[in-house]
Amino acid sequence: MHRERFYTLSASCPDRTGIVAKVSGFIAEHKGWILETALHAEPAVDADSRGRYFMRIEIRADSLPFMLTEFRERFRPIAEELNMDWKITDSAVKKRVVILVSKQEHCLYDLLARWQSKELDIEIPCVISNHETFRGFVEWHGIPFHHVPVTADNKPQAYAEVQRLFEESHGDTMVLARYMQILSPDLCAAHPGKIINIHHSFLPSFVGARPYHQAYERGVKLIGATCHYVTEELDQGPIVEQDVIRIDHSDSVEDMVRYGKDIEKAVLARGLRYHLEDRVLVHGNKTVVFR
Amino acid sequence: MHRERFYTLSASCPDRTGIVAKVSGFIAEHKGWILETALHAEPAVDADSRGRYFMRIEIRADSLPFMLTEFRERFRPIAEELNMDWKITDSAVKKRVVILVSKQEHCLYDLLARWQSKELDIEIPCVISNHETFRGFVEWHGIPFHHVPVTADNKPQAYAEVQRLFEESHGDTMVLARYMQILSPDLCAAHPGKIINIHHSFLPSFVGARPYHQAYERGVKLIGATCHYVTEELDQGPIVEQDVIRIDHSDSVEDMVRYGKDIEKAVLARGLRYHLEDRVLVHGNKTVVFR
Amino acid sequence: MHRERFYTLSASCPDRTGIVAKVSGFIAEHKGWILETALHAEPAVDADSRGRYFMRIEIRADSLPFMLTEFRERFRPIAEELNMDWKITDSAVKKRVVILVSKQEHCLYDLLARWQSKELDIEIPCVISNHETFRGFVEWHGIPFHHVPVTADNKPQAYAEVQRLFEESHGDTMVLARYMQILSPDLCAAHPGKIINIHHSFLPSFVGARPYHQAYERGVKLIGATCHYVTEELDQGPIVEQDVIRIDHSDSVEDMVRYGKDIEKAVLARGLRYHLEDRVLVHGNKTVVFR
Amino acid sequence: MHRERFYTLSASCPDRTGIVAKVSGFIAEHKGWILETALHAEPAVDADSRGRYFMRIEIRADSLPFMLTEFRERFRPIAEELNMDWKITDSAVKKRVVILVSKQEHCLYDLLARWQSKELDIEIPCVISNHETFRGFVEWHGIPFHHVPVTADNKPQAYAEVQRLFEESHGDTMVLARYMQILSPDLCAAHPGKIINIHHSFLPSFVGARPYHQAYERGVKLIGATCHYVTEELDQGPIVEQDVIRIDHSDSVEDMVRYGKDIEKAVLARGLRYHLEDRVLVHGNKTVVFR
Repeated sequence: MHRERFYTLSASCPDRTGIVAKVSGFIAEHKGWILETALHAEPAVDADSRGRYFMRIEIRADSLPFMLTEFRERFRPIAEELNMDWKITDSAVKKRVVILVSKQEHCLYDLLARWQSKELDIEIPCVISNHETFRGFVEWHGIPFHHVPVTADNKPQAYAEVQRLFEESHGDTMVLARYMQILSPDLCAAHPGKIINIHHSFLPSFVGARPYHQAYERGVKLIGATCHYVTEELDQGPIVEQDVIRIDHSDSVEDMVRYGKDIEKAVLARGLRYHLEDRVLVHGNKTVVFR
Repeated sequence: MHRERFYTLSASCPDRTGIVAKVSGFIAEHKGWILETALHAEPAVDADSRGRYFMRIEIRADSLPFMLTEFRERFRPIAEELNMDWKITDSAVKKRVVILVSKQEHCLYDLLARWQSKELDIEIPCVISNHETFRGFVEWHGIPFHHVPVTADNKPQAYAEVQRLFEESHGDTMVLARYMQILSPDLCAAHPGKIINIHHSFLPSFVGARPYHQAYERGVKLIGATCHYVTEELDQGPIVEQDVIRIDHSDSVEDMVRYGKDIEKAVLARGLRYHLEDRVLVHGNKTVVFR
Repeated sequence: MHRERFYTLSASCPDRTGIVAKVSGFIAEHKGWILETALHAEPAVDADSRGRYFMRIEIRADSLPFMLTEFRERFRPIAEELNMDWKITDSAVKKRVVILVSKQEHCLYDLLARWQSKELDIEIPCVISNHETFRGFVEWHGIPFHHVPVTADNKPQAYAEVQRLFEESHGDTMVLARYMQILSPDLCAAHPGKIINIHHSFLPSFVGARPYHQAYERGVKLIGATCHYVTEELDQGPIVEQDVIRIDHSDSVEDMVRYGKDIEKAVLARGLRYHLEDRVLVHGNKTVVFR
Repeated sequence: MHRERFYTLSASCPDRTGIVAKVSGFIAEHKGWILETALHAEPAVDADSRGRYFMRIEIRADSLPFMLTEFRERFRPIAEELNMDWKITDSAVKKRVVILVSKQEHCLYDLLARWQSKELDIEIPCVISNHETFRGFVEWHGIPFHHVPVTADNKPQAYAEVQRLFEESHGDTMVLARYMQILSPDLCAAHPGKIINIHHSFLPSFVGARPYHQAYERGVKLIGATCHYVTEELDQGPIVEQDVIRIDHSDSVEDMVRYGKDIEKAVLARGLRYHLEDRVLVHGNKTVVFR
C-alpha cells in the first residue's frame, strides 16, 4: 500500500519474448519509478494456441516527466505492437462504487465501515435497495439512498431504473452486497467486469437458491462464500475470491447463516479491493488476481 | 441455536464419579428437556491434585414444572454436595454489554451490525469512548454515548467514571473494542471475567505496544488477534479465542493493520458470543470454551 | 488422548427426556470413571418426526467392577428401553485396518509413518493394490502385500478377491488410500460404514474423474479433499472430514495435484482417526463427528 | 511448475529506476523466453537509507543461444552496474539435500515420500542421525545412513563430523527434520542460508524447549510450526514459512504433539520447496518468498 500518488498499468497480450523488456524499457526511459510489479504467463492450452501474458505495474506519478494523458499517447504504439488490452489508472481519482442491498446488514455495515475510515478510499455515489430498511443508516452517512422496489411484474422497469441510477451517478463498479434479486441479462451484459456479487456458497457447490440449506442437507464440514463477476449465466461468472469456515454436526442452518455472514463480508471486501486496485484481470471465465 | 426460551446451567467442580448422573438425574426427574450438553474433565496436574469437571447444559424452559428461582433452590443441595461453582441463566433475559472504543471503527461497526440484526441478542446500555469520534454514529442507533477523556493526569478519575457508568448501567460485560487505553488494576480487579479485550496479535507473541510493527520486524508469515479476559497483568489474561491470517513480504505495516482489522473483529465477535452464551468457563489462567 | 485402558460406548436413540440420566446413572451406580463424554441432539426435521440423540462416552476400564461382556449384559435392558443402536469397544483391542492403494505414495507413506510410531495404534493385516509398485516398501515394514490386478474384464473376480482378503484378515476397516478403482456395489453394500475413501475434491464440487482438472477449468481459488464412507453411489456417501488449501492463477493442474496431496493425506488421517476412535456416528447420509 | 529445462535467476540490488528494464532487456536481446517473473521492492526504512529490489526470473533453457556459463559471463557487467547479489541455477542440476533426523518419524517419512515420487526432484546423498532408529528405513530406500551420536562430552567432534559428512557429500542444503540437537555456532556460521530447521511452535512464541508444554500452559487456541534458516542464535533465524492448526481445551499436550506433527511436516515441506526452487531471498533477518 502506497500513500504517494501512483499510476496503475494493467494489461494483457499474447505471450512472446520481450514483453517485459519493452514495457519496463519504456518506463525506464522516462525515469519512471516502479513501486510494484506483478507478471503472469498463462500457458497455451494446446499446441495450436498461444499463451497470454498478464501484467500490473504501479509507477510513482511524480517520477514521470509527463501527465497521464501524455503517458497514454506515448505508450499506445507499444501496446499496439504487442496487441495489448490495457488501461492505466490514477490513484488520485477515486473509483465510484454503487452498492445494491436488500435486508441483510452485514456486507453494508462492513463496506461503510471501511469507507468511513478511508480503508476503502472510494466514492459511494448512492446505495440502491429493493427495501427501505437501510435508508436511515445510509443517509446518516451522507450517502443518497434510492428505493427501487422489485416485484414479479416490474422487473424490466426496475432493472432499467437501477441501470439508469448506476450510469447517471457515473458508477465504475456495482456491488451486490447480498442483493437478493437476480439482475436482468441486459443489465449484466451492459457492464461486463463491473458488477461484483457475493454468493453464499463455495462455488461451484450449491449454486442457486438457499445454499446453506443445501449444505446442511449434504452434511459438508466447511461452508464458504464466493466473490465473482456477474454474467448473464447465474452464479457462473469469473471467480475473484473465495474462502471457507469450519462447521460441524451441531450447527443448524441458522448457525450456518450466521457463520456464513462473516465469510461473506470478508470475501466480498477482499474481492472488491482487488477489483478496485486493478488487481483482477479477466481471462475467459477465469481471473488472474495479482494480490 | 435455539429459538425457544431455555436455561443455561454452567458449572465446574472437583472431578469424581457420578457427577453427570447426579445433574442429569435431577433434570430428568423433573422432566427437563435437554437441548445441548457439553462436558469436559480437566485432568489432575500431578498425583497429589485432583482433576476438575466442567459442564454446560441447556434446558428448555417450558419443559420444567417450575420457575428459575425454584430450580436454583432445588438444585442447590446437589451443587453443594459436589462442591460446585455454578450459575444458571435465562435466555429471555438479555445480557447488557457496555462497549468501550477509541478512534478505530471496525469492531464498533461490526458489533452494532450484529446487534442491529439481533444476531447478537443483547442490550447495549451505552458506548463509552475517550474520543468524540463515534458519538453521531452511536447515537443514530439510539444508544447513549459517553465521552470520558483520558489524559496523563486524570487516569484515576477517568477509570472511576468508566466503572461508575458500567455499574450504573447494570452492565454484565464490558467489551474493549480496540479501546487504546490500559484500564486501571482496580477496575480490572473489580470485574474479573467480565471485561473482554481484543488484542491485535497472536498472543503470547508481541505483547504490549505496536504488535504489527513487531511482527513486521520479525518477518512472521501470519499475523493474528486474541480475544481474552482482562486481568491486572497486561495481555496476560485467559485466552478465549484466537485466529490468524496469512501475510507475505510484500505487506507493509499498513497492510498488516488492514488485514489485522478483519481478524480482530471476527475474533472479538466469536469470543464475545461464546462469553455471552455462557460457553466460557475460566480455569486458572486458561479457559474451557464449549463451542 | 488417554493412556489407560478404557471402553468407548457410542450410541444413538430417539430423543426423549432422561437419556443421559439413565446412561450416566448406570455408569455411576457401578462407580465407572468417565474420561470423556460427548452428546448431541439432532432436532426433528418436522412436526411429525422425532429428533435423535447421539452419545459417546469413554469409561476407564479399571474403574468398573466387571468385564466388558458383563457390561454389555447389564447395559442391554437400558439400551432396549431407549430403543438404542449401540456398541462398546475396548481400547486394548486394536482395530484391524486393511489399506488399498494404487500407484500414488502420499497416503500410504503417511499412514505407515503414523502406524510405525504408534500414533495410529492399529493392526494392518495387509495392504492390497492393483499394482506391484509398493510391494517392497510395504513388505519392508513387515506387512503382507497382495497384488490384485483390476482389468476391464476381471472386475467381479477382482473385487471378490479384495472382499475375501478383507474378511479373512478380519479387517474392521478398509481404507482407500487413493485407490484409483471404483469398488463394486456388492462390496460396498457388504460393509456399510466400514469403507473409508479420500476423494480429491471438496465434495460436492467436482464429483467423478479428474477433479483437479475440473477445478482448474472453473478457476476456483481453493481446492480441497473429502474423507467419506463409501456407499453404492459414487462420491455420495456420508462425509467424515474435509479441508481446503488456497491456490491462485499461477498454479497449474500439476501444482494443484501436488498441493492436493498434502490436503488429501491430512484429511484422510484425521477422518480415519475419528472413525477408529468411534467418534463418527452415521445419521442417514450425514455424520455426527465427536472430535 | 514447468517440465522443460529452465534457468532461475535470483537477485537483489539497491533500488533505483531501470532495474527491470536492464535485466529483461538483456534477456529479450537474446530471445530468452521468460516462464515466470517475480519482483519486489522493499522500501527504505528511513530517509537516509535506500530501498532494495528483489527478483526471481525463470527462463526456458532452450530459448537462449548460449549455455549457462556464457550467460553468467555476459550478465556479469549488468549485475556489477546494478551492484547486485545474484545467482542463476539450472533446473537440470538436482540440488543435494542432507537430512538430519533423531527419533521422530513424521518429517523423514514425508520427505522420502516426496523424494520417492519425484515431487521433490532432489538428490539425498545421505541421512545423518544421532540415533540408529531409522537406519533400516533409510537404507531400504537406497540412501546412505550415518549414525553420529551426540553426547554431553563429544559435541565439538560430533558437529565436526556432521559438517564433514555434509561437505564431503557436496550437500547444498541441510535439513533439520526434527533433529533434536542444537548445532554448534561454528557449523551454523559455516553455511549461512543453507541450513533449514522446522521449529515446533509459531515463532516468536514459545522459543526454546518443549513449546507444546508452553502452549498448553498458556492456553492458546492455535498451535503452529515455523520453518526457518538456522543462525547462531537459537530460533532467531529468518522465517521462511509458518502455519497453525486449531486446538481446544480438550487437547492434552500429547494431542498437541500429534496435531503439531501434521503442521510441522507440511510447513517444512513447503519451506524446503521454496528454498530449493530459489524462491527465498534473505534480507537481513527477514525473507522475501516468491511463491
